[in-house]
Parts: sequence; structure tokens; C-alpha cells
Amino acid sequence: MHIYDLDTPALVIDLDVLERNIANMAAHCQDLGIALRVHTKTHKIPEIARMQLAAGSQGIVCQKVGEAEVMARAGIRDILIPYNILGPQKLRRLTALARMARNEGHSAITVAADSEETVRGLSAQAAADGATIRVLVEVDTGGGRCGVQTPEAARDLGRLVADLPGLELAGMMTFPSNPRAQPFFDCARDLWARDGLPCEVLSGGGTGLEAVSKELGFTEHRSGSYAYEGLTRIKTSADLTPERCALRVIVTVVSAPTPDRIIIDGGQKTFESYPPKPYGLVVEHPAARIQAMSVEHGHVDVSGCDHRFRVGEKLSVIPLHQGKVTNMHDEVAAARNGEVVCVWDVAGRGKVR
Amino acid sequence: MHIYDLDTPALVIDLDVLERNIANMAAHCQDLGIALRVHTKTHKIPEIARMQLAAGSQGIVCQKVGEAEVMARAGIRDILIPYNILGPQKLRRLTALARMARNEGHSAITVAADSEETVRGLSAQAAADGATIRVLVEVDTGGGRCGVQTPEAARDLGRLVADLPGLELAGMMTFPSNPRAQPFFDCARDLWARDGLPCEVLSGGGTGLEAVSKELGFTEHRSGSYAYEGLTRIKTSADLTPERCALRVIVTVVSAPTPDRIIIDGGQKTFESYPPKPYGLVVEHPAARIQAMSVEHGHVDVSGCDHRFRVGEKLSVIPLHQGKVTNMHDEVAAARNGEVVCVWDVAGRGKVR
Repeated sequence: MHIYDLDTPALVIDLDVLERNIANMAAHCQDLGIALRVHTKTHKIPEIARMQLAAGSQGIVCQKVGEAEVMARAGIRDILIPYNILGPQKLRRLTALARMARNEGHSAITVAADSEETVRGLSAQAAADGATIRVLVEVDTGGGRCGVQTPEAARDLGRLVADLPGLELAGMMTFPSNPRAQPFFDCARDLWARDGLPCEVLSGGGTGLEAVSKELGFTEHRSGSYAYEGLTRIKTSADLTPERCALRVIVTVVSAPTPDRIIIDGGQKTFESYPPKPYGLVVEHPAARIQAMSVEHGHVDVSGCDHRFRVGEKLSVIPLHQGKVTNMHDEVAAARNGEVVCVWDVAGRGKVR
Repeated sequence: MHIYDLDTPALVIDLDVLERNIANMAAHCQDLGIALRVHTKTHKIPEIARMQLAAGSQGIVCQKVGEAEVMARAGIRDILIPYNILGPQKLRRLTALARMARNEGHSAITVAADSEETVRGLSAQAAADGATIRVLVEVDTGGGRCGVQTPEAARDLGRLVADLPGLELAGMMTFPSNPRAQPFFDCARDLWARDGLPCEVLSGGGTGLEAVSKELGFTEHRSGSYAYEGLTRIKTSADLTPERCALRVIVTVVSAPTPDRIIIDGGQKTFESYPPKPYGLVVEHPAARIQAMSVEHGHVDVSGCDHRFRVGEKLSVIPLHQGKVTNMHDEVAAARNGEVVCVWDVAGRGKVR
């Protein structure tokens, strides 16, 4: 089936582009000499995670316990959830996951923590359930989000993790990787070494910051958005080319009410509503400007196009916010040269907890 | 179970507020003397649609064929899909729906159309499948989206609908209802009457514009967002009060890295990322400002709060974009006085086609 024969709106992945993006990032990290750990939040699809692992990624990242459950059920081991896991429901699911998913004899599940409350909760549940959870101490090195604020606080929390039952101290993590964090990490590593605390893992993150993590002496880097590629790294929509961007939304022209305007059947609930404008690139007609989004309609200014659009015509649009688009759709068709090869469930979608 | 015992992030509806909002809108339309047709896109939940119908709404609106299928399966009849339905897959599903869902002997399915292409597609499929589809001609009266541009074009398209097999001409629709559209409709009605075209329905829309539709002489008005209430009608976030807004997101404080900052476990994939800031109102601590959103983290400035937030604490947040929040979640708990009464599937979510 050709992608234009799909009912719309339909998410489509160009497999050639996806494979190239995956291979390029794997080669980039190999060249740098830093291990890649792929973040799956962009696609939430086990099949793509397996492609990334096959290309050399040493493990994956999930942002939610529910996403990790999906990936573990698909047979994937070595999963990092860089998030403070709190509350009885999530903790029970986390220990169940850690007991099920073993990686060469070790717990395959690592989480981040930045507080005593989180660490004590993890330990109590793991000890009660006979599980072991690997823990990275999260440090704030300028991101202004989660993370302990000083090397001393990192050492203190590391010490607590090392002392508590059910936990295995793995090291530290931060987001995003930041060149100015060198003094912080130098000091923290020194403090950890003096205390004899293990620091097998130093994990940085952010697509495009792989070299920064290497410079900081990290052991691994977390990148995700590169698989589909989009505005996270490509800063101007003019650079969103079909050769670089794997994701498309196939839409139908549902109305052509004036010579200057067409309406497509994808709006905020298909594309996300956050600017910058235009909201996506029309592959077949780059001069068409998606300039406004209603909830279920896209408003396209076609005054710059010679083409006469007809109602019922299909178009391919490269969206700006791949991860957020993915988060609203249950399935995506994988295609090569315009022909649908298979349809993947976005199996991690909706696993909000 | 108390709403604070739900795992987070969790969507919760305050049933008292929902019922009050539904009753108020029903009374408002009754006072005005205009029939209400509720738009279900805000909630996508058949149970709520039934509450709205019980309160006096004469029918419902769905934006997608898939949403209409969900509502029809739940036993709801008289469904308007104010959208140009195109393409063989959707047309086949539409005629199947029209054959299944009958309303007092008539087709229970009405759609909008603004082009000959749409109308001919509807007719061909309906005739082939032995179905009847009711059609409203969509007119553009300043909304700048879909819709024919002149009264004459409305008449011509109405005539075509009336002439083609498988279709039943019901009247006209527009969005949003606009006082300046009076001359357009006066002229269009006149042209239709001269041609003997039926115009049983004149449908306007937009929560808050009920009186405008009445002034224009319309027979019904489509309102949706009033059920949960939010920024569509309440223009400043200061007015997003717990007494008016039915939807909440229960979140957990997952980090309190500095005295001024807490991080909650809801970000762009829970709340939507589009400003204005703050991104929602923290019910328990209105001085807390949700000032930034990462993909899965909410960044809250608590410098204005006396309360000392602790990691693991639960909070209730009124989101700004109810319909878009709903679109990212599979279920919502309905609660009264803080106690969960039941959990509803957001059954229409993800029905993107």
C-alpha cells in the first residue's frame, strides 16, 4: 500500500531516513568514544528501540515506569528511568520489573534519585519485595530542574544509597550535559572516591551534546530525538528536510475555500499547537505555509504555490515536535520508498505513570 | 479512594462542578430559546455525553468518524460531524454508521460539506451502501477556515445535495457564530427558499456565543468546552477557579531541589506546552507558579508560598487546555468531595480518523 492510500491523518516513518539517523548517531558516539544510551521517549516503539540496540546502543532510557514495562515485555534489558519514582503503586511496579528484567545477573532497571525521600522509598519497597534497584544520583549542573545542588549533597545521597538495603549505587547523572559542570563533577568524583563509593556510571544527556559528555569524562550519553530528527536539534524549520526527518503526517486537503487557502485534516490534536510557525513542512509543496492550527484543522496559506490544490488530495507534512506528535497517536506506519512495510503500535503511548 | 491516593499524574473530574456546568449551560440555552447540541471533543467520554443529553441537549457533535463510532456504540443517536468527510475508508465507515444509527426513522448521522468533491463522495458511497447521510452546507462567515464564501455558493451546493442520491439536505452550519453574518444568512435563506430547498437546521457554534446564534435566527448552537471550563472562555488564568473548572490533574512533587523550586510529575505530555504561563493553577497553593514545562516535568516557582513542600506530596492542578489534556490521557477518575466515584475511559481519545 502506498502511503497516500492510508486514511488520514496518518503517522508515517520513512525507514531509510530512520535507519540512517540511527546509524549516524551510533557512528558519532563510536567516533567520540562514548557509549550511547538511546532515549525512547521520542518514538515509544519497542521495534525502533531494538533497531537502536542492534546499531550499538548499550541500553535504553524510558521516562515512565509504564514505558519501561512496555520495553521490558518486548525483551529489552538495561533500562534507565532517569526520574524520581515515588508512591506505592509505581514502587511496586518498579520492583516487579526489576525482579523480572535481569541483565547478565544484575538488575536491568536503573533509576535516578535526588532526595532522601525518593531513596528511602525505593529501598523500602525493594527490600520488602526482594528486588535490587540500581540508582544514579541526579545532580543539577545548570539545568534548573531536578538534581542535588552541590558535590557534597551528591556524595551524601550516594552514601545513603550505598548504605540502604535493596539498592545498588551505580553513579551519577545529569541533564543536559553542560561544559561548565566540569568543576562540579571533578569535585564530586573526588568526594566519592574518598568515601569509596562506586561510580561505574556517569550519564549525561541531550541530543547534540554527545561530545560534551565525552569532554566531561562521562561513561554514557543519552540521546533520543535524533531518531526522527526535528526542531530539538534543527533550529529553523527551513532545515527540516525530508532527507533528515523520518516522521511524516499524511493529511488530506479537506477544503479549498479560497484560492489562497487550503484546510488539511490535521490540527492541534495531530501536530501539537506550539509555534514556531509554520507548524510543519509540506514535503510536496515547500512554499505552502501551515500558518494556523485549529483543534482538528490545519490552515495552510498556499498563495506562494503554483500548484492548484484539490479537495481530497493527500500531502505529507514533516511535523516540528516529533515526540509530542507521537504522544497523541496510537500507531505509525513504517514505509520505504513510499510503500508501507508494516504498522507499529506506539506501545509506550499513554503510559503516563 | 481519595483522589490523593491515585497514582500520578492522574486526570480527575470534580462531578459537582461538571454537573453544575452542564446544568448551567442547559438552562442558559433554554432561557435563550435555542437548542443546544453539545460538542464532545472536550471530554470524548460517552458517559458525560449522556449526562449532557439527559440535561436537555438535543444531540451531540463529534469531530471525527472514529469519535462518532464510539458514541454511537454507546447508544447515542443524533450525531453531527461538522467536517468534510473524504476518502474511501472514512466514507465506508460513515455509511455503516448511518445504517446502524437511526434516529426516529431518520439517519442519525449528519455531516458538513463545503465542496462538490465532498458532496459527490458522500453521495456515491451512501448510494452504493443503501445509506442516507444528512448534510449541512458549511459556510464561512468570517472564521476563515472551511466553508463556502457566498450565499450563492451555499445555494448551489445545497441544490447539489438535494439532487444527489443518498443525501438528505438538512440546512447550513458555520463556526464560529458571528453577529456580522446576519446579511449572509438573510440572503442565503432567501435564496434557499426561492429554490424550495429545505433548511430545517441552521447550526452555529462556539461556547459563549449561544446568544449570537439565537440573534442570527439559528435553530441550534454547538458548545463544548463549558463542560470542563477553561481558557476557551475564561480569559485569564486568575479566573480558573476550582468552583468553575471541573478538570484537575493530580500530580506528585518529585523533587524540591531548592527552597524556591519544586518539580511535579506532569510536563508537556500531561498538560500541553502552549503558554500562557502559568501553565495551570495549583488548587492547594494558588501562589505556586507553574512557570516552565519540560516534556515530563513541571517546573514550579514556590517562592511566593509559605508552605514547605515535601517530596511525595500530592497537588491538584487545573490545566489550561482541557481538551488537549484529555487528548493525551486514556482515562479519567470522576470524584465527588475528593472521593473517586468511578473511572471513565476517554473512549474517543486516539480516534484520529
